[in-house]
Amino acid sequence: MAGFFITVEGIEGSGKTTIAERLEAWLRSRGHTTFLAREPGGTAVGEALRKLILDARHPLCVESELLLIEAARAQLMDEVVLPRLDQGQTVILDRHIDSTTAYQGYGRGLDLDWIARLNHFATRGRRPDRTLLLDVDAAVGLSRARGRNLDVPYADRFETEERAFMERVRQGFLTLARQDPARVHAVDASRDVDAVWGEVREDIQNTLPN
Amino acid sequence: MAGFFITVEGIEGSGKTTIAERLEAWLRSRGHTTFLAREPGGTAVGEALRKLILDARHPLCVESELLLIEAARAQLMDEVVLPRLDQGQTVILDRHIDSTTAYQGYGRGLDLDWIARLNHFATRGRRPDRTLLLDVDAAVGLSRARGRNLDVPYADRFETEERAFMERVRQGFLTLARQDPARVHAVDASRDVDAVWGEVREDIQNTLPN
Repeated sequence: MAGFFITVEGIEGSGKTTIAERLEAWLRSRGHTTFLAREPGGTAVGEALRKLILDARHPLCVESELLLIEAARAQLMDEVVLPRLDQGQTVILDRHIDSTTAYQGYGRGLDLDWIARLNHFATRGRRPDRTLLLDVDAAVGLSRARGRNLDVPYADRFETEERAFMERVRQGFLTLARQDPARVHAVDASRDVDAVWGEVREDIQNTLPN
Repeated sequence: MAGFFITVEGIEGSGKTTIAERLEAWLRSRGHTTFLAREPGGTAVGEALRKLILDARHPLCVESELLLIEAARAQLMDEVVLPRLDQGQTVILDRHIDSTTAYQGYGRGLDLDWIARLNHFATRGRRPDRTLLLDVDAAVGLSRARGRNLDVPYADRFETEERAFMERVRQGFLTLARQDPARVHAVDASRDVDAVWGEVREDIQNTLPN
């Protein structure tokens, strides 16, 4: 049986990492063989690229940033996501193609069609089966993100961006959810984490093939 | 006055690095302010990416390899090539867009139109003013390359590829020269280095704007 591919998306401070971890634990408890990774990252090369991308001391031009994110994605798909899906595993990614469209496209203004082509090339056209968009107001997300320890790994350039940028990113995510409602489910993530998790669990329960 | 942009291309062992260095020294002696870099590389990020790309211990999928080469290129164009050309400098690159077409396209079989689009995105459409293609038989190039110290930095995956691969790459370069004779000048690089350098110098002398 082919595996199931879930992505968790949203702006900084939307709770993606917590939800992705709860989702993985819950799926394991139900007998799934799971794989959870964050983007960019998830492979030796991808984690090295993540450091380069997030290191504010070496500012990247927007074109290079986009290409590095897609390079890390291509390697992650090749090394782990596609083989594990072929083995019937359940794969969860903390950020994926929609983050690139939202951040580099809606946020930084790069061409959306071009990003779609790069996403297709890096993923070999394998789309997620279900995407949870954790939607939160830009101001709420940024203030949550700033409340974290800013040493490692969150002291990255994305979190030093302005609130206006993050609001464009959020609206980009919401546009993606409207354009592809069969795949992307937006969840109000301004609520406490148990309420958010309850909605996510129910959504995945209803979406998983039996 | 806008700067002049020269690239030196060819397979392993064709003599690119030697010719690029002679070219830079000669242009300096004629009063040019020059900049010479190799691809991938030439910036802090680019050199870090070069290590990842050439490290045979972390084999990259072809898609990721292509995207990393283009990411390093995008950063090199942004940080140094385009600003220096704007300042009227003479820029020389040891490998550039034609290597990607020849190696990743003709060599590894990735789509040529897609590579052309990526090259355009990474360079912002700025084409070299003149390209010297140092043409040498695959067997000759590989045997020259194998004669080098294989420790650093040449013990890379490209040089462990088969002769058939290198012959496809060579034919790809020659095809590019036929398609764009106004830009790409093929030089018989099987001769001794002084003969090759003589032809290169004469070509650049005739091509430089006055």
